[in-house]
Amino acid sequence: MQTVFFSHAPRIAAGASCAGPKECAGIVGNYVDKALSDDLFGESTYEKAERKMLSFAIGQAIRNAGYTEEEIDVLIAGDLLNQIISASFAARELPMPFLGVYGACSTMAESLALGACLIDGGYVRRAVAATGSHFSSAERQYRYPLELGTTRPPQSQWTVTGAGATVLERASGSSSPLAITSATFGRVVDFGISDVNNMGAAMSPACCDTVLAHFRDTGRDASAYDLIVTGDLGALGSRILKDLCWEKGVDLQPNHVDCGEIVYQVVEDEFQGGSGAGCSAVVFNSYLLDKLRRGACRRMLFVATGALLSTVSSGQGESIPCIAHAVSIEYREE
Amino acid sequence: MQTVFFSHAPRIAAGASCAGPKECAGIVGNYVDKALSDDLFGESTYEKAERKMLSFAIGQAIRNAGYTEEEIDVLIAGDLLNQIISASFAARELPMPFLGVYGACSTMAESLALGACLIDGGYVRRAVAATGSHFSSAERQYRYPLELGTTRPPQSQWTVTGAGATVLERASGSSSPLAITSATFGRVVDFGISDVNNMGAAMSPACCDTVLAHFRDTGRDASAYDLIVTGDLGALGSRILKDLCWEKGVDLQPNHVDCGEIVYQVVEDEFQGGSGAGCSAVVFNSYLLDKLRRGACRRMLFVATGALLSTVSSGQGESIPCIAHAVSIEYREE
Repeated sequence: MQTVFFSHAPRIAAGASCAGPKECAGIVGNYVDKALSDDLFGESTYEKAERKMLSFAIGQAIRNAGYTEEEIDVLIAGDLLNQIISASFAARELPMPFLGVYGACSTMAESLALGACLIDGGYVRRAVAATGSHFSSAERQYRYPLELGTTRPPQSQWTVTGAGATVLERASGSSSPLAITSATFGRVVDFGISDVNNMGAAMSPACCDTVLAHFRDTGRDASAYDLIVTGDLGALGSRILKDLCWEKGVDLQPNHVDCGEIVYQVVEDEFQGGSGAGCSAVVFNSYLLDKLRRGACRRMLFVATGALLSTVSSGQGESIPCIAHAVSIEYREE
Repeated sequence: MQTVFFSHAPRIAAGASCAGPKECAGIVGNYVDKALSDDLFGESTYEKAERKMLSFAIGQAIRNAGYTEEEIDVLIAGDLLNQIISASFAARELPMPFLGVYGACSTMAESLALGACLIDGGYVRRAVAATGSHFSSAERQYRYPLELGTTRPPQSQWTVTGAGATVLERASGSSSPLAITSATFGRVVDFGISDVNNMGAAMSPACCDTVLAHFRDTGRDASAYDLIVTGDLGALGSRILKDLCWEKGVDLQPNHVDCGEIVYQVVEDEFQGGSGAGCSAVVFNSYLLDKLRRGACRRMLFVATGALLSTVSSGQGESIPCIAHAVSIEYREE
């Protein structure tokens, strides 16, 4: 059993997001709390810009929920940078305890799931789950210095510049209809992909594993959800996911959507679409949260996927272990 | 309120540890499950050796508890390497779900606290909390290539080569008397220290903050514990911690011990003692767990401390944000 069930179904009080100019040219542009015109966000380095976006998203989510920072009991956050400095440094400015997590691009789902456990179990009243990424800081850390102008292969994705944060609170006393009813913790799956430009192919088996575990543990099938949202598989990874699930007798085709696939109006360099921890964080906390709030989507399985590689592991000839965590969100009438 | 209380007080079923030759020359040598004679552990790189130690500790802890890997519901682990590859790659070999955490050297306490929440809340039956570090992989990632032979300043500490893992289980049905009764989640505290060789000074204010929060939240004082164990402040950091607490009217002197201070027979290069995520993980899962099991220490506050820096944050002129998480462990008669 990989799935935990929340008998008191913690609520999503609010979310907030912030994204760069390239991202805001796409679908999320109409929904983010802050659309940047400058991807340095007025800072001197991309790492500081990434941190500032994350800080903004956390602060804005708390304000959107009508709380003050002092009313939040815990921040659960992580990011893609070495030693998750964006999250740690954002937490430094905040008064609440901090739990650092690392799940690469699965961080949004991991932090939501852990936050829901802490609230449902009665340990905290309110939690913020947050993550983000920045194209330029990720690119120079994981791949090549941007100044090199390295050609990107067609299977590659484009790391989203953006951050998202979600405020969770107890069901009792909450006016929000958006309930987290269960979460499925993923196992690490490695199908032997070693191409660091092909994240979608690497992550899709882990995503399939978690989705099937969720259906097995809950007794549900794909039709139980209006939307099954994956994190950042991109176009190629999404196709592989649907194929893998199909082979196991599960048809995701009718209601699957991938944040990486929809985040950009793919025109040139983005190739397979978006990736990065910020990808699912921004899409979830803008476009998807709007759909949920309006009741346009009433049952959503949110499955963020992460590739757990580092430059050192790749350099030492390792393939890419991946993971996916899933969170089930349902609209509940009062 | 930063402290969570466990009404069903999850139990420590067993622990296991593994440490390098330098570490085993000290006090932990008599207690570890595996004392390495070769700090490469038969591997070709230090990173692979670190991973193998962590894998060993996890597997051995599960065996020591009398379980199989299939009976463990979740692994909560992290480490110091970029993208926590030791934990992720160790998890790749295991069948249970994985929650990656990052708290630098506070990881042992963070993972124990989260595991206790998940068990006490009824979400999982058994969890493994684990972390580790390796002197040679940490040194080359955080500071200088070993081949340079850089002189170490007297305020520096020596990253412990070792790993530790703890199996937690539900109180009901457990034969273990070691109960986790509460946990205090730390806030990020930064006193402006920017010397990456002076971790003890950087971390002690965060440690003080968490210890005082624990006493405030629980209504206890230092005399409530037989031992207050800090993670890896080292000799200098421990002195600063005691001074900081003293200024706030709390006297830790009579029952404080620091894992970093006791792990080595300090003779030359280690200067202030041990550090690294493996420091508190090894000492806790060997020497301290033995004390607890025998009832020689019946109430322990275990406070692991972490410095949340990266080479990029230091290079960009930032000081070192730090954190500490605390776990209260009590011996309970059946």
